[in-house]
Order: sequence, then structure tokens, then C-alpha cells
Amino acid sequence: MIIDCDIHVYANGKCPLEPFIPARFREAITSRQNSSPGHGYANPFGVDRRDLECETPADVVRLHLDPLGITYGVLQPQPGYSVSMIHAQDVANALAQASNDWQIETYLRHDPRFLGSVCVNLGDPRAAAAEIRRVGGHPQMVQIITCGEQVHLFGHRAYDPVYEACCEMGLVFAAHPGAEGSLNSSTPVGRPSSYFEWHNSLPLTFQAHLGSLVAEGTFEKFPELRVMLVEGGVSWLAPLLWRMDKNFKALRSTLPWLRELPSEYVLRHCRLTTQPIEEPSSPEFLVQMYAMLKAERTVCFSTDFPHWDFDDPRRAFPSRLPQSLKDRILYDNAAELYGLPARKPEEVTA
Amino acid sequence: MIIDCDIHVYANGKCPLEPFIPARFREAITSRQNSSPGHGYANPFGVDRRDLECETPADVVRLHLDPLGITYGVLQPQPGYSVSMIHAQDVANALAQASNDWQIETYLRHDPRFLGSVCVNLGDPRAAAAEIRRVGGHPQMVQIITCGEQVHLFGHRAYDPVYEACCEMGLVFAAHPGAEGSLNSSTPVGRPSSYFEWHNSLPLTFQAHLGSLVAEGTFEKFPELRVMLVEGGVSWLAPLLWRMDKNFKALRSTLPWLRELPSEYVLRHCRLTTQPIEEPSSPEFLVQMYAMLKAERTVCFSTDFPHWDFDDPRRAFPSRLPQSLKDRILYDNAAELYGLPARKPEEVTA
Repeated sequence: MIIDCDIHVYANGKCPLEPFIPARFREAITSRQNSSPGHGYANPFGVDRRDLECETPADVVRLHLDPLGITYGVLQPQPGYSVSMIHAQDVANALAQASNDWQIETYLRHDPRFLGSVCVNLGDPRAAAAEIRRVGGHPQMVQIITCGEQVHLFGHRAYDPVYEACCEMGLVFAAHPGAEGSLNSSTPVGRPSSYFEWHNSLPLTFQAHLGSLVAEGTFEKFPELRVMLVEGGVSWLAPLLWRMDKNFKALRSTLPWLRELPSEYVLRHCRLTTQPIEEPSSPEFLVQMYAMLKAERTVCFSTDFPHWDFDDPRRAFPSRLPQSLKDRILYDNAAELYGLPARKPEEVTA
Repeated sequence: MIIDCDIHVYANGKCPLEPFIPARFREAITSRQNSSPGHGYANPFGVDRRDLECETPADVVRLHLDPLGITYGVLQPQPGYSVSMIHAQDVANALAQASNDWQIETYLRHDPRFLGSVCVNLGDPRAAAAEIRRVGGHPQMVQIITCGEQVHLFGHRAYDPVYEACCEMGLVFAAHPGAEGSLNSSTPVGRPSSYFEWHNSLPLTFQAHLGSLVAEGTFEKFPELRVMLVEGGVSWLAPLLWRMDKNFKALRSTLPWLRELPSEYVLRHCRLTTQPIEEPSSPEFLVQMYAMLKAERTVCFSTDFPHWDFDDPRRAFPSRLPQSLKDRILYDNAAELYGLPARKPEEVTA
């Protein structure tokens, strides 16, 4: 049994967004009032796999869920994580609503294996909270989705209404990279010169957000909050936890609202997805790294279908990774995070 | 035998900078024309250890080199790594010169165990190159020192004159954190709220710089260039190398000037210092992590004397770290980097 925590689906082509956009905002879209700043880094080979033509829910079932035996697939809709970058706040809010209605009426309705991500405009946290309450009760909606790139680090109290709504609706707060470099530069120093560097730098954003969520006491304010970091890799987590714990021991009096070690908050509240899976020179290193970051609790599987650096669940893991750990990563961790049925004990993944 | 790669010394108190400042720039200093932007993050306990009164070369010998048996100590002078942040370029250049003359006439003259770092203003790369050529021939000068915070990522060709001068004079290019958040924010998203977060985020800058140095082909342009990253920790290196190598395999046609894997450039050209040494929950993790990042070649010991998070060479390492690896970290790696005498085979450190 497999839960794929990152399946990209697009509102366009044979499955368009337009019917779901409120009439009074349609002209805003056709006249490009939904513009957002670009980051200017392009993968010269394109982002999607060229071997697939995938435009509808039936395509995703036929090309992905069925052949790989995916039990549940968590959607990354587009429009989705980058809606928060749109300059015009009302247009961003309207697009978020349209994306959610589109998701419900197309993918979620098509197959119960599809699980939805509530698209929100984090630039307008109160509107985002209202949208979470509007559609978050749909039984297949499991998380909200936003981008690593934002005006503020996630611990900023501006986002508290969003966390409050997530907790109230029982939804995970998820972030996905992609708009890094559009509001800010994608590194703390400046804008790199290449897509290669830009892609290397994506986990930096997640590292900064985790530090912020811990330090600002977000998990003390919202004890039910669960955070999912999608497509940023996982191996940077161990060094970050070590550094935060060591610094906290020396500086805890500056953060009197924290009652636990930073690592304890992160390990309880945060999960990460595998893709792009790390491929160290020795496969043993990945086994050791997974032990360091407690992958048996923290890591969930994702393919990033249908993107260029797609990970196939049959080939992604080194063979020496214990089957019990593979099962936790492929299914159990995500099932526990999203409140899905437990794996049947006899069903061991291949 | 021990080489300490990070000893902070200050031009003030009993060992002032003033006599070394050219007369026509003295008024600029007293009237604060040496100002630079601040980052606004303060350690509430101060940065220096409170149990030490350390103002002169003799103090550092008595309190640090002698009691710990330091064979060589690489100085971090102040003024030093943050001179490049000063708004007024001529003042920055003058201060860099003064710092170097001060270092030579005070610390380097006092004890042959002291090794110097050439202070440069990276904001004026041609002046920096001239300064490297002016004082870099001093037999105790082993590196140039600048800050992780800069206008450009280190791979930017604006800095090529500096790398050229380093190679010509046989000096290592070293960077030290400290000014992060003064020119840019210290994270890719925005300014965090606490010193704790700021300190957690310092390795992000080094990760971005390494990606830039690799991607821009700096090590192809300057095959003799050696880079030392001081006080940013080391454990983030393994995940970064894995991510860069994986991305390079897919994107190498976008970087046609590179002839090797990113990890090969980094492992040959770059070294890092231990402090603040990582303290994972299990000491075994550090042993494994050191294997992942090839610490037997890449990691050099440092104490960060006399700062608050000082590491004592007698206590810093977990006991299960093999003595042969400890010897490489405590002495051999830095000796090879800086061209110092090899460790005498019989001298094994305690």
C-alpha cells in the first residue's frame, strides 16, 4: 500500500478552471490581473515528463494510480501553492476558491483515492482562513497548500488565523517550493545565476521556516497543528535539528514560551516528503541519515508525478532499507498524518 | 598537535588599531565614517566568554595556546570579516590595511604560532586583490578573511580578481559568518525574530555560496583556489553535496564548463571548521555524518576562542571518534590546507 503525497494536477486543457471562476473575476484573469512576480529560473527540459500526456483525472488514474498501485494520492493543484504571490489580493482569493471548487468537482469527485489540498492566498490570512472553513470540511480534503516563498517566515503571527482554521478543520498545513526567488532572492545572499543553483537552494527556505515555527512558539499556540513540507528533500533536517537543539540549550531564556527542545516540536508536528529522494554515493548513508532524522515517524513518500525528477516507488529506495521502514514511509506515516485507514497488516508493499 | 582554525583577536584596549590607521583616515574613524548596516540580532549574554580577560597577544598565549597545547592558531582579526560591509569604500580599504599591519606588528610578531588572515574589502575587489598582494607574502599569513554576507554570491565573477590574487600568493580564501542580515535578510524568506533563529540560519549562507562557487565554474577558472568555511558547522555539507550531484546529473548540459561532479570540486577545494561542533542525540550519528562528508579530508578543528560557544579540543569530540580521524581533524587537514609542517608520527593528540 502506497500513499503518494505529491501528485501535480493542472486546471487547464481538457480540465479547465474557467467554469469555476466567479463571473465577475473572469475578465481579471483574461486581462492578466492574476499576475505575480516571476523568479526567472527555467528548467531547459521543461518541468513535466515528456513521456506522458496527462490532462484529466482519468489520465492520472490510468497513467499513475493504477499502474503503481497508489492507495491514496494527495493532489498539488495548479493554481495552488503560488496563488499567494499574486499582486491583486481579491483576484488571488477568487482563484483560490476556483481552484478548490475545480478540485472537488473534477478530481475528488472522480476517484476516492484522490485527496485534496485547499488552495489559499496566504497574502490575505483572514480570507485564507475563511476559505479553509468553506471547503475544508470536504471529506477528501486533507491539507492546505501554500509555497515556501512568502512575505513572512511561517512563524510570523500574521499567519495565526490560518493555523487556527487548519486546527479547527483538522487539516495539515503543507508547503511546497516553486516560487522561491519571486518575492525575495532564493538564497540569503542574492540571486544565483542558474536553475541548478536555484533548485539546490530550495531546502534553505524550509530550514528557515522550521526555525521560525519553532522559535515563535507556533506549536505552543496551536498544539494540534501539523505541518507537511513537500518536495524539499529530507536530509537537511538532521543537521538543522542538531543546531537548533544546541543553540536552544544556550539561549532558552530568550524564548521563554518554549517548553521543549526544538527537535521535539519538529518531530511531533512536522513531516516531510521523500522526493527528490537523496542518492548518496553509498546507499548505507541514506539508511543512516533516515535514522538520524527519525524517518520512521517523519518521512512520507511522494513521486512528484508528472515532473521531470519523478521518483518511482518501486525503484526509489536503496535495497538495504528495512521493509518495516519502507512501509512506514510508503504508507503509515502519511496515513497517521492525514487520518487515513491503517495499513492492513498482511499487505506488505513490494 | 592541534591547529585551531578560529581564534578571535581584537584591535582595541591594550592592543589598539589606531597607530596603524593612515593619518588621513583617522578622522573618518573617529567621526564614524566607518559605519556599516547592522543586523539587529544580539546574544543577550554577550559574544565573549565572561571568564576571560584577553586583550593582548600575551593574553591569548597564556589563556589559550599554552594551556591547550595549540601548535598553530589561525587568527580572526577584528576589524576583519565584516570590513566589506562598510559603506565608504575608501574607509573600508584603509581599515583593511590597518588591520593587516596591526596583525603583523602585534600578534604575528609576538609568537610564530599565530597565523594571520588578510583582511580585505570585498566590496572593492581590485583594492582587495592589491591588499592581498601587499601583505600576503608575510610568512605567517595563510588566508584571506571575509564574511558569508556579501552583495554577491561567491561564484560571481566580480570576485575573480580576489581569487586570482589568492592563488598567486598561495593564500586560502576563508569566510566567517557574522554580518548575515545586514545587507540582505539572513534567510531566503525574510528577517527572523530572534538571535536564536539568526544563529540557526548562518549555515544557509555557506550552502548558497558553495552552490555558487561550483556552478559558476570558479574552481575551473582557479584550479589552485582553496576555500575555508569557518564557524558554520559541517553537517549540512553531506545533504548539499547529494542534492547538487543529483541535480547536476540531470542538468549538466546547462553548466557545460563543469567537468566533474559538484561534490568532487567541493571535496578537493573546500574545507570547513568544526565549531560549533554538532552534538546529536547519539554520538554515533556524528561518526556517521563525518564519514558522509569525508571529514578525514574536509574538516578542520577550531575553538572559536574566546566566544560563548567555544569548543575545547579535549572535550569536543565523542569518544568513539577514531583517533586517526581526530588527528586528521585536529591537525593534518589544516596543515595540508595551509602548508604547515606535517604532524610528527609519534605525536598523537590526547
